[in-house]
Amino acid sequence: MDGHLDTFESLGKGTPFVALMRAIIEHIRLFEDFDDSEIEIVAQYLDCYRVPTGTKVIHEGEQGDFMLLLLDGNMEIARRGSDGFPVKIGHAGPGKTLGEMSLIDGEPRFASCIARSECVFGILNRSSLTQIIADQPRLGVKLMMQLLLLLNQRLRLVSAELVRTMSHPASDTERPPLA
Amino acid sequence: MDGHLDTFESLGKGTPFVALMRAIIEHIRLFEDFDDSEIEIVAQYLDCYRVPTGTKVIHEGEQGDFMLLLLDGNMEIARRGSDGFPVKIGHAGPGKTLGEMSLIDGEPRFASCIARSECVFGILNRSSLTQIIADQPRLGVKLMMQLLLLLNQRLRLVSAELVRTMSHPASDTERPPLA
Repeated sequence: MDGHLDTFESLGKGTPFVALMRAIIEHIRLFEDFDDSEIEIVAQYLDCYRVPTGTKVIHEGEQGDFMLLLLDGNMEIARRGSDGFPVKIGHAGPGKTLGEMSLIDGEPRFASCIARSECVFGILNRSSLTQIIADQPRLGVKLMMQLLLLLNQRLRLVSAELVRTMSHPASDTERPPLA
Repeated sequence: MDGHLDTFESLGKGTPFVALMRAIIEHIRLFEDFDDSEIEIVAQYLDCYRVPTGTKVIHEGEQGDFMLLLLDGNMEIARRGSDGFPVKIGHAGPGKTLGEMSLIDGEPRFASCIARSECVFGILNRSSLTQIIADQPRLGVKLMMQLLLLLNQRLRLVSAELVRTMSHPASDTERPPLA
């Protein structure tokens, strides 16, 4: 499960990246309403990595149990279409979280994420989330509420887009970010 | 906000409905992995109502802050299409939860829910959820995790359907349950 992490350059825990997180805080929806000390605590539970351009960090269809917080660089999100070829369905820059769905349910990845530049990211896996909830219940609840808000917002966007697409099947407007 | 509740026949707290909840437990995804005592506790935080056939229980576009757990009866879920006419996008039977998105973000309702028979349901609003978390942190975390799983599963379904619809724009197959 997510064995590819072993092949990435490990940068240790997130603590050395707290300053970077603060610099991009306005883009980190996950940390909305988190104060500095809360960010520092969450950072202790993140495992950070650096990968070169072109690295596939998350593989569509593979089991996964972590969420990724992109700290530096850009990623492309792609999913195989019905013809088997990958279709770009979104992109992500610093502050964006990716892979929350598998963090939550441990089911196969919905899409792939490929580094389009050198990328630095922190990952939060299921056991770290459980640990935060056990060690810091108040902060754990806050983090879960942020995850709920994130998924919820995405569900609203995707649902509205689906209804729109179904009522205008020939539409060729911009696709929404899916992952 | 959700002022319509005042117009429904109030049946009090959920405690008298615990036996009914147990009878339909296999259909209540929200209570997956909940034991009897946990269901009894959550029931104390539910406000229950009965409405006659035809009642619009949730109004698309209106502010809302509660989730509904359908205990008896059937509801139709509808959303206005681009022509302004309501389109049925799903239906719900006993055990189904509706309206989670507005419980979580307090934003306007995505769709309307209309009773297609006499219905009995419990509602959990934002302040009750906050209260459960404060009073019973372990149970509160479990409930939040179930909500995360619910939204997550729905996001996977809707996202997959959107990708499918976009690659087959002329498809006229069954619509997925959206709400």
